[in-house]
Amino acid sequence: MGRWAPNSRERLEAAAFDLFEERGYESTTVAQIAERAGLNRATFFRHFADKREVILAGEDVLEGVFVDAISAADPGSEPTEYVRLGLTAADAVMTPPRRTLALRRVAVVAGNEELQERGQLKFAHLTASIAAALREKGVDELSARLAAELALLAFRVGFERWVRAREDDAFAPLALAALDELRERMLRL
Amino acid sequence: MGRWAPNSRERLEAAAFDLFEERGYESTTVAQIAERAGLNRATFFRHFADKREVILAGEDVLEGVFVDAISAADPGSEPTEYVRLGLTAADAVMTPPRRTLALRRVAVVAGNEELQERGQLKFAHLTASIAAALREKGVDELSARLAAELALLAFRVGFERWVRAREDDAFAPLALAALDELRERMLRL
Repeated sequence: MGRWAPNSRERLEAAAFDLFEERGYESTTVAQIAERAGLNRATFFRHFADKREVILAGEDVLEGVFVDAISAADPGSEPTEYVRLGLTAADAVMTPPRRTLALRRVAVVAGNEELQERGQLKFAHLTASIAAALREKGVDELSARLAAELALLAFRVGFERWVRAREDDAFAPLALAALDELRERMLRL
Repeated sequence: MGRWAPNSRERLEAAAFDLFEERGYESTTVAQIAERAGLNRATFFRHFADKREVILAGEDVLEGVFVDAISAADPGSEPTEYVRLGLTAADAVMTPPRRTLALRRVAVVAGNEELQERGQLKFAHLTASIAAALREKGVDELSARLAAELALLAFRVGFERWVRAREDDAFAPLALAALDELRERMLRL
């Protein structure tokens, strides 16, 4: 049933992006990705449900990290304090190697409407999960929904700045700065 | 080539919802909708691109009304003043007969994941259009994005309350009240 393959997930990701860039996302098959990575299809499917998930699986990891940070926090904090904890925790998955992949990802997604839509749906799911985690902490319904939208906007603005920043710039300080700028604007809306 | 059919759009909508409720959204065909409405397929396609659009076309009308209200407003207003104008203008499409359809629509969409996703994508598109309209009025980038998210949340909360309200309750007062509640919470986030 095949040898153990070290870093097989990372190898599959790297192979997939190489192929997406060489021949286009639509024209690339799972079999080609596995072959390029020197692995078989079964190994691919142990890591990803389908080709699309090579692009989008990071969102699910992010959601887990973000929501877990809120759930683990002391109750009774202000909603934006929970948001700060979530954005700070996101730093663990927004590492320099992930930034390189994120840059390649932005280019692939820009050329494919279905991927853009799936990405927006993942964001909508993340927003709903953050709002639910905030309600669990006793935040009222409207404040939880509002803080979740604020969290997503801070995440997105932070992400946009991170992929344009220097290679070794960390994600969390950029996202937290975006959060502060958004809060400051909220008071003047 | 068919006679001129008065209210053919409304007749198609009513026939479609009758069929969706009787036999389910997935099992209903465009041919069946046209037949039930006493019209032909060609007439259906003059009004709707496909079956899905019977459910979702209202979002495009709403987007036009909302964005036009912002575009027509005097420049130099506060971002939330533009949002108020948009929500107030939305009242023109959120009429009592539309409320009845909206209630039936909520039930159909709840049973179909693809429709839920399309609805979320329409909301994401509406948010981006509102942000663009606000930027056109000179609102800065972050404030425009924040105000657009606030507008959508006020719209959604107002809509949730409207479909649960009395039959003759107007939409705009509920949406504007939701906006005020959200703004009040924003100051305390």
